[in-house]
Amino acid sequence: MSTALPQRTGVVGARVRRHEDDRLLRGLGRFADDVDRLGQVHVRFVRSTAARAEITGIDTSAARAVPGVVAVVTGHDLADLPPIPIRLPRGDEPDGCLQRVLPTDEVRYVGEPVAAVVAEDPYTAEDAAELVVVQHRELPVVVDASHAAPVSTLDVGYGDVDAAFAAAAHVVEIDVEIGRHAAVPLEPRGLVAEHSEADGTLQVWGATKVPVFNRDVLARMLGMPAERVRLHAVDAGGGFGARGEFYPEDLLVPWLARRLRRPVKWTEDRAESLVALNHSRQQRHRVAAAFDADARLLALRDHVVHDNGAYLRTHGLLVPELTVGMLPGPYRVPAYRARLDVVLTNKTPCGTYRAPGRYEGTFAREHLFDVAADRIGVDRAELRRRNLLRADEIPHVRPLRALGTDVVLDAGDYPALLETALERTRGWREEVARLRARGHHAGYGFAVFLEKSGLGPHETADVIVERSGRVRVHSGGTSLGQGIETVLAQIAAERLGVDHTRVDVVNGDTELQPHGLGSWASRSTVLAGNAVDLAATAVLDRARAVAARLLGAPPDLLDHDGDGFAVGDRRVGLAELAAACAPGSPHLTAGEEPGLRARRVFEVDHMTYPYGVHVALVDVDPGTGRVAVPRYLVAYEVGRAINPALVEGQLVGGVTQGLGGAVYERFHYDAQGQPQATTFLDYLVPTAAEAPGLVDVVVTEDAPSPDNPLGTKGAGEGGITAVGAAVANAVRDALGLTGDVGRLPLSPSRVHGLFQHGMGGTACG
Amino acid sequence: MSTALPQRTGVVGARVRRHEDDRLLRGLGRFADDVDRLGQVHVRFVRSTAARAEITGIDTSAARAVPGVVAVVTGHDLADLPPIPIRLPRGDEPDGCLQRVLPTDEVRYVGEPVAAVVAEDPYTAEDAAELVVVQHRELPVVVDASHAAPVSTLDVGYGDVDAAFAAAAHVVEIDVEIGRHAAVPLEPRGLVAEHSEADGTLQVWGATKVPVFNRDVLARMLGMPAERVRLHAVDAGGGFGARGEFYPEDLLVPWLARRLRRPVKWTEDRAESLVALNHSRQQRHRVAAAFDADARLLALRDHVVHDNGAYLRTHGLLVPELTVGMLPGPYRVPAYRARLDVVLTNKTPCGTYRAPGRYEGTFAREHLFDVAADRIGVDRAELRRRNLLRADEIPHVRPLRALGTDVVLDAGDYPALLETALERTRGWREEVARLRARGHHAGYGFAVFLEKSGLGPHETADVIVERSGRVRVHSGGTSLGQGIETVLAQIAAERLGVDHTRVDVVNGDTELQPHGLGSWASRSTVLAGNAVDLAATAVLDRARAVAARLLGAPPDLLDHDGDGFAVGDRRVGLAELAAACAPGSPHLTAGEEPGLRARRVFEVDHMTYPYGVHVALVDVDPGTGRVAVPRYLVAYEVGRAINPALVEGQLVGGVTQGLGGAVYERFHYDAQGQPQATTFLDYLVPTAAEAPGLVDVVVTEDAPSPDNPLGTKGAGEGGITAVGAAVANAVRDALGLTGDVGRLPLSPSRVHGLFQHGMGGTACG
Repeated sequence: MSTALPQRTGVVGARVRRHEDDRLLRGLGRFADDVDRLGQVHVRFVRSTAARAEITGIDTSAARAVPGVVAVVTGHDLADLPPIPIRLPRGDEPDGCLQRVLPTDEVRYVGEPVAAVVAEDPYTAEDAAELVVVQHRELPVVVDASHAAPVSTLDVGYGDVDAAFAAAAHVVEIDVEIGRHAAVPLEPRGLVAEHSEADGTLQVWGATKVPVFNRDVLARMLGMPAERVRLHAVDAGGGFGARGEFYPEDLLVPWLARRLRRPVKWTEDRAESLVALNHSRQQRHRVAAAFDADARLLALRDHVVHDNGAYLRTHGLLVPELTVGMLPGPYRVPAYRARLDVVLTNKTPCGTYRAPGRYEGTFAREHLFDVAADRIGVDRAELRRRNLLRADEIPHVRPLRALGTDVVLDAGDYPALLETALERTRGWREEVARLRARGHHAGYGFAVFLEKSGLGPHETADVIVERSGRVRVHSGGTSLGQGIETVLAQIAAERLGVDHTRVDVVNGDTELQPHGLGSWASRSTVLAGNAVDLAATAVLDRARAVAARLLGAPPDLLDHDGDGFAVGDRRVGLAELAAACAPGSPHLTAGEEPGLRARRVFEVDHMTYPYGVHVALVDVDPGTGRVAVPRYLVAYEVGRAINPALVEGQLVGGVTQGLGGAVYERFHYDAQGQPQATTFLDYLVPTAAEAPGLVDVVVTEDAPSPDNPLGTKGAGEGGITAVGAAVANAVRDALGLTGDVGRLPLSPSRVHGLFQHGMGGTACG
Repeated sequence: MSTALPQRTGVVGARVRRHEDDRLLRGLGRFADDVDRLGQVHVRFVRSTAARAEITGIDTSAARAVPGVVAVVTGHDLADLPPIPIRLPRGDEPDGCLQRVLPTDEVRYVGEPVAAVVAEDPYTAEDAAELVVVQHRELPVVVDASHAAPVSTLDVGYGDVDAAFAAAAHVVEIDVEIGRHAAVPLEPRGLVAEHSEADGTLQVWGATKVPVFNRDVLARMLGMPAERVRLHAVDAGGGFGARGEFYPEDLLVPWLARRLRRPVKWTEDRAESLVALNHSRQQRHRVAAAFDADARLLALRDHVVHDNGAYLRTHGLLVPELTVGMLPGPYRVPAYRARLDVVLTNKTPCGTYRAPGRYEGTFAREHLFDVAADRIGVDRAELRRRNLLRADEIPHVRPLRALGTDVVLDAGDYPALLETALERTRGWREEVARLRARGHHAGYGFAVFLEKSGLGPHETADVIVERSGRVRVHSGGTSLGQGIETVLAQIAAERLGVDHTRVDVVNGDTELQPHGLGSWASRSTVLAGNAVDLAATAVLDRARAVAARLLGAPPDLLDHDGDGFAVGDRRVGLAELAAACAPGSPHLTAGEEPGLRARRVFEVDHMTYPYGVHVALVDVDPGTGRVAVPRYLVAYEVGRAINPALVEGQLVGGVTQGLGGAVYERFHYDAQGQPQATTFLDYLVPTAAEAPGLVDVVVTEDAPSPDNPLGTKGAGEGGITAVGAAVANAVRDALGLTGDVGRLPLSPSRVHGLFQHGMGGTACG
């Protein structure tokens, strides 16, 4: 189906410049903090300093007395509001785990909002917030997930795992942890809300990710009809799964605007962002594989303990469930069983972060496979070759679920991509040998992974041809910086035959596009892109019919020629056709809907599964424990790259971001649940200095998805998925470990410890 | 066709409260001056103090030196812009009569903008504007239209007028003038414009009347694609034809916003409004009628001199043309000839004002008929009876044109309405006799008139059912205070079977409704109303089809029941049906457009012609010349009153407003072209004290229009059309004049003169 698109303009597949950059590079981006409304007041949230405590009282009198303070509200002012609902519920989430907008009885993590102070300026609000005294009685805290009972336990799998393990020639098991880290977008959150007394409408600026869903939640919680709430997306300095979910602040800011009858603005600062925005990743895997004598997999088994922080937020159990649903990856796994324990701890609640579940599961599986290959005595690549699903085994139906859909691996040649990656990095293995000869602790590591993308069930787009001949797209997707405006413009341009610079894309405005599931789960290009293609196709069909009236020829005799239609030497362009569809045109038939536009829905039942290989070359300093990454490769299959430059950008950015959780980033807490990383002095995100010296990217389009007309697969996450795995394998290689690395991040102290205490790790078999 | 509407809810025809009043009565209306944009600057226009002069230089240096002044621009800064185009061109308008945005060489009326001063606050802008020195050399002025050559001459008519006059038993001719007066809306104009550097869009707040047309003009003059310009209507404190046309300021304010990269705000003050907003009405009619011996009309003849002020603005030649196109009114006129001379003078340019051309023409004709009846010796009512078109002569095709359409009088029984009015005011004639017996100079006067309304060619509306079950209407009409939000909500509610309070109407937002010809010419209820009805009908058809899927029954077996459909004891409501049309619904078929909504165009070739009778009882004070109006009647046929309370409100308001031009209001100029009425101390609008003691209103629905499914006719102007005529006839009756009153307004000094100099007037015959 990937050939359905006409290759007329060839703009799909072209490396056109990002439409977004025209404004962003001129400093004209409009981020949440750039939005100001006349008469606005500013809110500052008072956040808990205790990890767990009973609230015995909140003294707001001193704050209220500060000149310029407009209001101070606490949980009792919002006690009638329900807790924040789960966005994608399974239906079996445990009771009582949801976060209330402001708690009235107990706080459960440091950073939990307990009061809001509103003042005429942000400085007064911040100063006054410090005067709010939360009286509390501290309660016992849980910091280590292994010390608590799970709130949810899930068993998934298929086949007779016990029999397979009993019959195995080789059983290898490791016990590894992934550290708590998170998205940490460059731009913290921000919101501005304004309520109109005149017509009862509420406008909110700062929406990202899922504006229509958040509009509906906000309206329901406030008791308003959804259509009276309008969310406006703005530019966003990164989302990565965390930004744009519905947080307590997303209710509080609009609620305050209605109550105070003043516009209310909130700009999150970095310190609060580091404790308020979803954390992610923290898991422990006791994972084992059973192999026959030929190193062929007989079964996989995993026991996952997932630390979800203090509450179930909007993601519910999605990340841990996705971890076990995707853990078998691109391999032939005859039997599989995973036990999943989800534990609440007195830490910041968790949600998704770019490649949620896959970053963790890929690390566990691929690290296990390296240990296993060494233990069995087979080449690490050869072990993969024997166990990867072959092209003739695809599509492959796996009796598992992911994000509520059946897992059907749709298209691909996994072994071929592995060979491509290995061949392309052959020289790196030689470089490792040379470095080692010079005394370096260099290592080569790789990991094969499966991604998922294009989650349905649907997305909506409008395509509108203006009388100027320009084209407007109203998409249900949202811009998080990923370049969606450009990609959707290319898709519309290709279908309509117009220059892509004549296409304007509006995302995330719930008034212009009231339908839309948003941008997450690497779904935008697949879902929004195909919705745009469907709408553009409908517009083109209409244009052809009208052109036939103008040219006096049957529609099927017309040639689609550039941005119009021609027959013989007569031709009409889109601008003329739009005019011919305008009210009052003699070319409209009686009762015909005016305007050259269409709204269409793209629906899909299954996700599409891109896949890739990461290769890391590391150089480890035994003195400092520093892990340098001079070379990194991402080989990734996307089915169809609408704009290869943007795919590459996503992948390179993903690698650098993934390196953070692999080597540097960790939200650690002391025994009292006090976060120890609350500034960028303590929470170490990779800078340019830490980025790989070279990121080589191979984007392949060999296996278009059969599930969508564009054949495309999402590319937003494949750059990060296997970074933890590949770097861990490379470090293990560099250090010559026989067991596993134990845990991520491979921070200097951790690596130094591995040097000191020898071969570390927990591998047994 | 007026029975096509189901009478289910009966909300069409009900006196429901105005939706607008909820916000207006709470002080929450949002008028142009209520709009503020962050960082805005304020503009003040420097206006000519000479009626005609050559500009020899403009010294802006002192103004520029004032702290806080941001910019001063003159005509040379905009010299490349074309003049302001005519909105409804005939095609034969004389060259060189259009107004430039700012003149570079010559000013032609006092109040003409010649420069714009922009400053950080309006006070600085106003002070600095006074420092701009316009150096000029005065040129000869034309104040009296009879002293100038016409720029346009038009002859219209049919039949052999000369032969008819030659053969007539009676010929009566009068020479009357209508004074220069105008709309003078309660709220002066205002605009706020903001340009976005980021996406190149321009937003303008303050639109009224014809936002889509004005958007297109603005975009074209600025060289922008129309879809990048968004006009937002706001509440409007009256329009009456003047407000909402495209004036120099409508270009200047947005132009400044783009040039300065700051939002620009302008609020017109009363003094400038009185010289800058279109004037109207000023005409001289030498009108004559030829009758046979039975007082039956053989022919009408008129020579109209129309004083259009200094330029042809957006209305071009519309008002004078409409005057002569409508002059024969509801009568059987076998032959007719009008000569029209349009003259430019050095006074404020003219445009439409409520009942343009008809107020003037009705006065001329009906005053002539009273003079003629007396002269012939037939009862004034009897003369009308003999000459009004009878019901069996309708529809009546008159070989004339009005607003570019053929004049086809569509439905009515004119004599019957006259009898109704006479019968209803029988007691007033007795009251006149009683007053006279007590020495009062009381008089009874009436006038029969024809209105026009529902000008096409088309109007567009969207009807959208939200998932809450609420209904949204995006109309191409605009709100000028007339209650259109209420009326359109009633029409949608009636068709859909929902409560009218569940319908929200958005007018005049060119983004939400990019099509639309706006609200003028009493067209909104007819055009926008029928467009809403068509769109609601399309929505209902779709809802029925989807309901059939949900209920598993054929569509035509479903009963439209309240806001939903039922079969047997099963029922689905609109909210459910909207949900069933949402993306992802299993009830949508593949490729079906999602959403329960429709956009439809109502098209019509001809206008529809309501008609009426006005009756005035006056009591004239011979000492002061004051004309008191203790009783006034409007009998008006509207075909179908969507909301009778709003029709009545329109009519009562129209009477009071019309009384201004009949008795009080006059823009007079001295011989140098200096306006003498530049404040409300000099320009006298009727207040509550001058309003009639009683306005009796009879709204009939006896002759629904066959040209639109709702059967409705416009009611915006019929309250004012014949006020000048009825009051003049009553004053003539009171004073016992044998000739005519000479001219309007019948100001105290004029009436005093009529007392002093006897029977005045110019009637001859």
